[in-house]
Amino acid sequence: MSKFVLSDALIEQIEILIENKSDQSLLDLLQEVHFADIAEILHELTLEEATYIIKLLDSEKTSDILTELDSDLRDNILRNLSAKEIAEELLELDTDDAADIIADLPESRKEEVISYIEDLDHAKDIVELLRYDEDTAGGLMAKELVKVNENWNVLTCVKEMRVQAENVTRVHSIYVVDDNDKLKGRLSLKDLLTTSTKTAIKDVYIPKVDYVNVHDSAEDVARIMSKYDLEAIPVVDEIGRLVGRITIDDIVDVIKEEAEKDYQLAAGITQDVEADDSIWKLTKARLPWLLIGMFGGLGAASIINGFQDAMELYPILLIFIPLIQATAGNVGVQSSAIVVQGLANDTIGGEIINRLGKEFLLGLVNGIAIATVVLLVSHFLFDTSYLVSVTIGIALITVIVNAAIIGTFIPIFLDKKGIDPAVATGPFITTSNDVLGILIYFLIAKVILGF
Amino acid sequence: MSKFVLSDALIEQIEILIENKSDQSLLDLLQEVHFADIAEILHELTLEEATYIIKLLDSEKTSDILTELDSDLRDNILRNLSAKEIAEELLELDTDDAADIIADLPESRKEEVISYIEDLDHAKDIVELLRYDEDTAGGLMAKELVKVNENWNVLTCVKEMRVQAENVTRVHSIYVVDDNDKLKGRLSLKDLLTTSTKTAIKDVYIPKVDYVNVHDSAEDVARIMSKYDLEAIPVVDEIGRLVGRITIDDIVDVIKEEAEKDYQLAAGITQDVEADDSIWKLTKARLPWLLIGMFGGLGAASIINGFQDAMELYPILLIFIPLIQATAGNVGVQSSAIVVQGLANDTIGGEIINRLGKEFLLGLVNGIAIATVVLLVSHFLFDTSYLVSVTIGIALITVIVNAAIIGTFIPIFLDKKGIDPAVATGPFITTSNDVLGILIYFLIAKVILGF
Repeated sequence: MSKFVLSDALIEQIEILIENKSDQSLLDLLQEVHFADIAEILHELTLEEATYIIKLLDSEKTSDILTELDSDLRDNILRNLSAKEIAEELLELDTDDAADIIADLPESRKEEVISYIEDLDHAKDIVELLRYDEDTAGGLMAKELVKVNENWNVLTCVKEMRVQAENVTRVHSIYVVDDNDKLKGRLSLKDLLTTSTKTAIKDVYIPKVDYVNVHDSAEDVARIMSKYDLEAIPVVDEIGRLVGRITIDDIVDVIKEEAEKDYQLAAGITQDVEADDSIWKLTKARLPWLLIGMFGGLGAASIINGFQDAMELYPILLIFIPLIQATAGNVGVQSSAIVVQGLANDTIGGEIINRLGKEFLLGLVNGIAIATVVLLVSHFLFDTSYLVSVTIGIALITVIVNAAIIGTFIPIFLDKKGIDPAVATGPFITTSNDVLGILIYFLIAKVILGF
Repeated sequence: MSKFVLSDALIEQIEILIENKSDQSLLDLLQEVHFADIAEILHELTLEEATYIIKLLDSEKTSDILTELDSDLRDNILRNLSAKEIAEELLELDTDDAADIIADLPESRKEEVISYIEDLDHAKDIVELLRYDEDTAGGLMAKELVKVNENWNVLTCVKEMRVQAENVTRVHSIYVVDDNDKLKGRLSLKDLLTTSTKTAIKDVYIPKVDYVNVHDSAEDVARIMSKYDLEAIPVVDEIGRLVGRITIDDIVDVIKEEAEKDYQLAAGITQDVEADDSIWKLTKARLPWLLIGMFGGLGAASIINGFQDAMELYPILLIFIPLIQATAGNVGVQSSAIVVQGLANDTIGGEIINRLGKEFLLGLVNGIAIATVVLLVSHFLFDTSYLVSVTIGIALITVIVNAAIIGTFIPIFLDKKGIDPAVATGPFITTSNDVLGILIYFLIAKVILGF
């Protein structure tokens, strides 16, 4: 299969075909294109053009395209479709994807769209999924799965499976339940095929099966599935009844989103935004951290202002403020990032005191290295007196050790309090270390230089 | 299945059993524990204790445990095993996992270990895999797969498949090749089962199949598999011959590692390190960025030192240095993080000039907001004259706009040059914005205050 390349020429060709309403040519052109690639194409078109394509293609294809679109573009396209048209799209989708789309609709349209879904069982399943928070196993699962009753024999089982499998894209596993729908275990396809048709399922199923609860967090589900290399996991409700199934492709999305969120937090972005979002949305996501940094900067200004004597007697001290501040910030971010990642991967073991001791040593090593270079360079570059040099050297080492310890302690502390430690990275840790670093610098200067 | 919890009590119990050499009790205790959980247990034990467990359990289980261990611990345990013992472990593993373990062995041991692998085909496959870079499709793929010749009929095909499937954990797909082993397409299990046994494969296979080349990067493979929701993808060599298969669980690992790497780069950590690594290894990963930040700090010192007049006439300007610097750094990191993520997700479209224009506007909005608050606060907090206030306000807006544009431009520029844009985030962007921010601040002050 030749690989799809999204070229400007292709986009232009499609735009011309839309303008001329050459529907048949458009259908021919997009016939062989994968729905994920069509989704990429739609992102390059105007809303009107994208809507035109969605209305042109049949719902078997467009339903899949809709699941691949950014939620902003999807919402806008859906706004141009009638409730009946949306319902037709949802009929083609698995329950989990359909529920995700309905969840994003305005409250006023949800009920109307659901009422138009022709398959009542499908509609019922979707409504059930809408009850769960999107960040839980219930929010991730689909109702489509293959399950058999432990009291059936192999023959009944195979017959029933054929019927159920029609609605399931990939079978993965056959789950075994009792008369109350409680999850009992799973069935190996191989055993099923090599056993006499009269054997009871009860006698051949494997009672050991990993599962998650509807209320488990999406993060926990991702951790379990990737730890145990599972491609699908059954979901049970509060009393152990099998209610759904989560497949690995949904988990890949969770892992990616999780990583993106942590990355954005570390960069001081408080909401899930993308480069193409509006200036207003981007500002809302960026301004809060900038304001925190700003108050930190004003705090630092107050501190410096409080050391008027130093400013008059040793103005040379002031030119090293950026150095002290940058170093403190960088060390703090490094330390916190390592801890946050360790916490996310469950690789942070042992006593907290040992970890802080290690960071102390690490800070000392890095601090002495940095201080040595700074003193050498500034001896030649700036006219620093002996005592000022000593001040800068000791201040650098202290600030680095301090930043390393704070950067390590805060995420561990937050984690123990049940707060996502990732919020402690980025501007938050930078700002506190900036301010503290400058305070330490002037205090040490005061002691050594005695102003 | 009850969920596994790694408790201190369990670890203690295991340590006592090891000390007393109560092998049978240990075997009983670990009998029902999943290999991924045993791997977690080993990370809490001493090297001697971990080695003891590996030697005690049989290789069918220990081989899987080894694949789950951190590479540091695994290397240390393998050092305590003979070449023959390692070869026995490898015999139990799929070729991709076996090759990963051999790749980490010291050069001197590799050949010896391979010579002890009893299954010659398995050894040959592993040696082939060792040729590929670990960050490519070749480095990710396993040799285990199910393939059939297009010239066979359905009956031969089913017979052959049964034999091949024995070595394959999950079948996923049946690939169709020609007499030269070139990948022609795939076969649907359903079609196979519903077609007459005499039908030629040629007449029933699906010629459309996604594939990657052995030399494609692991990142590209991850992108393709997650974009098209594939659970397995065949790998072909330079002339289109089917040489291996990559499954989704390997891709989950790639996605996680990729995210961790970007996150660490953003935090100024240049190597893949973990909280439990040695101080020396951590220092090597952290010091380079700290040195860059340090030279930035010294550069800033030179700039301030160059504005001696300002220092004497307007010492109040100096107390706002931390504010200017922190704001510039934060804005730069935010802008670059959004662009880096957009580039990774292929959601950065359109002309670069439009994007820079948007960042200019965004910077202006944020800048005016920040400057307004700063001027209000500092009017009451510090004794700033009218002209100094104007200077600070204009400087803040300029610095923010500048940082936003640089933070956007550099990653896009690096990406166009084929360099990983993630290196532009974190301390690198912070440092350049710090220095430039301070320069802009003093230049604006010079123009407005005229010193």
